[in-house]
Amino acid sequence: MLTIRIFVTGGTFDKEYNEISGELFFKQTHVADMLRLGRCRVPVDVETLMLVDSLQMAGTDRQLILRRCVQSHHTRIVITHGTDTIDQTAAVLGEGVMGKTIVLTGAMVPYTFGSSDGMFNLGTALAFVQTLQPGVYVAMNGMCFPWHSVRKNRRLGIFETPGEPG
Amino acid sequence: MLTIRIFVTGGTFDKEYNEISGELFFKQTHVADMLRLGRCRVPVDVETLMLVDSLQMAGTDRQLILRRCVQSHHTRIVITHGTDTIDQTAAVLGEGVMGKTIVLTGAMVPYTFGSSDGMFNLGTALAFVQTLQPGVYVAMNGMCFPWHSVRKNRRLGIFETPGEPG
Amino acid sequence: MLTIRIFVTGGTFDKEYNEISGELFFKQTHVADMLRLGRCRVPVDVETLMLVDSLQMAGTDRQLILRRCVQSHHTRIVITHGTDTIDQTAAVLGEGVMGKTIVLTGAMVPYTFGSSDGMFNLGTALAFVQTLQPGVYVAMNGMCFPWHSVRKNRRLGIFETPGEPG
Amino acid sequence: MLTIRIFVTGGTFDKEYNEISGELFFKQTHVADMLRLGRCRVPVDVETLMLVDSLQMAGTDRQLILRRCVQSHHTRIVITHGTDTIDQTAAVLGEGVMGKTIVLTGAMVPYTFGSSDGMFNLGTALAFVQTLQPGVYVAMNGMCFPWHSVRKNRRLGIFETPGEPG
Repeated sequence: MLTIRIFVTGGTFDKEYNEISGELFFKQTHVADMLRLGRCRVPVDVETLMLVDSLQMAGTDRQLILRRCVQSHHTRIVITHGTDTIDQTAAVLGEGVMGKTIVLTGAMVPYTFGSSDGMFNLGTALAFVQTLQPGVYVAMNGMCFPWHSVRKNRRLGIFETPGEPG
Repeated sequence: MLTIRIFVTGGTFDKEYNEISGELFFKQTHVADMLRLGRCRVPVDVETLMLVDSLQMAGTDRQLILRRCVQSHHTRIVITHGTDTIDQTAAVLGEGVMGKTIVLTGAMVPYTFGSSDGMFNLGTALAFVQTLQPGVYVAMNGMCFPWHSVRKNRRLGIFETPGEPG
Repeated sequence: MLTIRIFVTGGTFDKEYNEISGELFFKQTHVADMLRLGRCRVPVDVETLMLVDSLQMAGTDRQLILRRCVQSHHTRIVITHGTDTIDQTAAVLGEGVMGKTIVLTGAMVPYTFGSSDGMFNLGTALAFVQTLQPGVYVAMNGMCFPWHSVRKNRRLGIFETPGEPG
Repeated sequence: MLTIRIFVTGGTFDKEYNEISGELFFKQTHVADMLRLGRCRVPVDVETLMLVDSLQMAGTDRQLILRRCVQSHHTRIVITHGTDTIDQTAAVLGEGVMGKTIVLTGAMVPYTFGSSDGMFNLGTALAFVQTLQPGVYVAMNGMCFPWHSVRKNRRLGIFETPGEPG
């Protein structure tokens, strides 16, 4: 069975509550904990590239993600990412990576808050990455969107196909 | 987008703790709650066929599941099921249903216990059912097994391909 | 058994995560849910006076709380409150209310985040209010501080007696 | 501040779910985790005397608990205990220990299940033990019962004063 590369970039997924400041922050990724909780046995290599809010993600960050995807010997890659600019990173990868299946996913609620969509989304991403043809996709809301056909509806907090009636 | 049929049959997935008796029991399915928590927007029709521990599942129960899968107009079906005999039900469906993609899944820990693998498994099942060719599969541990090539390793609490070194 | 009055004023206790904006906000109090989860059978009358972050609490808010405590026919009162200015409100009540047992409590982590100290604190507050002599107290960290001898150590996120070696 | 002795004896409080067997079992106590979650700063000495279901508790077990309470130099003691025979142990202690404040508490739902009453009960027990006169008490449902005046209503899963209208 092929090993899947998981690149962690941050996002709501991995945010925690700082009880002293009352603010959300990053300490470390929870992806390994989540895979353990999901009793996942798919071979994975997890690497944290950065831990940032995707609204703070710079062009150089996206270039780093692109470079790491291109250079990786893995042909199946999952990327955890903040939802606000996940479509932008997907577009950079969609235009720059050939012959690999890449699935980006995120969460609307932090994993540590208990009521997160993160476990569900990680499950869908890992399944989509094992079964889809080469290409770049965003997995959210149980669905899989091709990179050139996805946008976040910020008002509703959902992902949709542009042009689709909201 | 095609509507996915979800048949609920019970299993650890849906068990709850009875604080009076100290035992696990079934009250109702949590699949709708889980889909809401996962912020799932895939069109689904959820129907509870039964709520049983899969060790208690009789041949007539499996025949009912088979009949409902055959009769359903849906071509993509997810079945939530206890893990102990999920491979037996998968075999009945594998031999009896043609031209449909059916994914069975379950959980090792009840959803209501917080630390469940249920959200992750449901995510993988919904993703696999959208992408796989017609056939009958078991989705557990992040993986997807064809019905004729899966068994539960009861000692370890994991699913594996028969003949595979444990 | 005497009925205990619970006044809700907000604070971290009752904050929720807004997954659209990524910020914490107030929707409604969770005190009734918490008492149900605690299987509490002490007779209580819960009333929400306000739902505010205690850093936003104005002098008029504290006067309202004082007035409601003075006017209440209950002799035992619990007040849920943000931790940042809980000592200030306690002082206003300590100087203005006679002959009643009043216990203020709060939380460092929202109840809805799962990993909250709220259930524990609410338990201590309800126990202290049933057993202590008339006076005004702050219940945090499992301890009960008289109103004139408590302050929040903001750096450590704990409550202590002023002058006590931190 | 006086150090409080906490004796752990087991009970639903500390039960966990064995996902292989589908049964509840004891691995270790969660009392230290619970105190950390509650951000408790009361000085405590926690000792596990046994980890048993209180329906399995033998007379010799109760004699051990009694002996350890008598011998302890602590004057304030909390005991975590299964709810089914908590009143029996309370009676043994009530008749055998003088001059100490002892509060027994338990839970109807395991701490590890997320929806437990354990955090609330532990909070009440720690508060009652700090404030009550010497004697033996059972803290459940937010209330504190003297040892000679408490029984579990097994049908409703609540504690009550015998003779009280259910």
